Amino acid sequence: MKKVFVPLANGFEEIETVTIIDALRRAEIEVVVASLDEPQVSGVCGAVTGAHGIAIVPNVSMTDIDGDQFDMIVLPGGLEGAKNLNQDARIMDFIKKSNNDGKFVAAICAAPAVLANVGILNGKKATSYPGVLDQVKIDGMQYVDAPIVIDGNVITSKGPATAMIFALVLIGLLQGDEKRDEVAAALLVRL
Amino acid sequence: MKKVFVPLANGFEEIETVTIIDALRRAEIEVVVASLDEPQVSGVCGAVTGAHGIAIVPNVSMTDIDGDQFDMIVLPGGLEGAKNLNQDARIMDFIKKSNNDGKFVAAICAAPAVLANVGILNGKKATSYPGVLDQVKIDGMQYVDAPIVIDGNVITSKGPATAMIFALVLIGLLQGDEKRDEVAAALLVRL
Repeated sequence: MKKVFVPLANGFEEIETVTIIDALRRAEIEVVVASLDEPQVSGVCGAVTGAHGIAIVPNVSMTDIDGDQFDMIVLPGGLEGAKNLNQDARIMDFIKKSNNDGKFVAAICAAPAVLANVGILNGKKATSYPGVLDQVKIDGMQYVDAPIVIDGNVITSKGPATAMIFALVLIGLLQGDEKRDEVAAALLVRL
Repeated sequence: MKKVFVPLANGFEEIETVTIIDALRRAEIEVVVASLDEPQVSGVCGAVTGAHGIAIVPNVSMTDIDGDQFDMIVLPGGLEGAKNLNQDARIMDFIKKSNNDGKFVAAICAAPAVLANVGILNGKKATSYPGVLDQVKIDGMQYVDAPIVIDGNVITSKGPATAMIFALVLIGLLQGDEKRDEVAAALLVRL
């Protein structure tokens, strides 16, 4: 079974986060949602609150994660959420190691800035929420104004309105076109 | 401030639910998310789990709700979630009273069946997830195969892929076209 890692930081964008988790689980992908916080009593983590006050219960704490198990890491957006991911050394290491191992690294909205921060957008094509990647100078990065940009193992997307098609593209990469189209049909997306 | 009620029943469809709450809050609407369960210690409710295993923390228990305060009720879909709403007498009463008071009543995906169940789709145009309203005989109801159907105070929609435009339509009804377009632009929706 394919396994995807989604870190949940305070201030995550709720539509993006939930659309990714929901759609990928529909495609029979195991999605592990991890809090940056330490586990509370008996291994259970406290809920993490998004940018619009929606609190989601994570599956596990980042502390209990073995990065080698995953086929893909997906970073949800949210300005504050991406900032919190950016300040977490474990997330930085996870992204670098995933990229070095040739695994899929994906980010949407404000989160492509986290990928830029660890240097893996150098020489790549990428997109983001307007004002994120297009406002900074990144060595050899080419900003593309498109809903989704795939460059090798790195996939980026723009924001809430592109989250569903972003999730479907990720499903296609992990589970193939047939499964992607099956989930798209169930979601009532016309591809 | 406009106030919207969103009941959260086990098995709710996560994309629909979160898209509605997130988008409406972006439009400065107060969205109250209520669990059908009794409050636990000190008025706090336990998390409610959606159809794809995402657990969300509600704001309040249904027990502590005063229906008169709200301008609109929105029912998220999910087959199991809608079934659970359908079996809750408080939800039935809430919908009937809201409708009698001329307030907005909205439902998406499997949840228009709940509106049909309390009789408020009789003589109305409505839509739903394919196989929900179009498979049953409802007195004088006209099924419309469209992403969103507005008939007076009753608004219905099809499913996950139509949730964002559904939320924007609800924002337009409560806060006007300018606020709707502002939120659409921030979500990167092209209207």
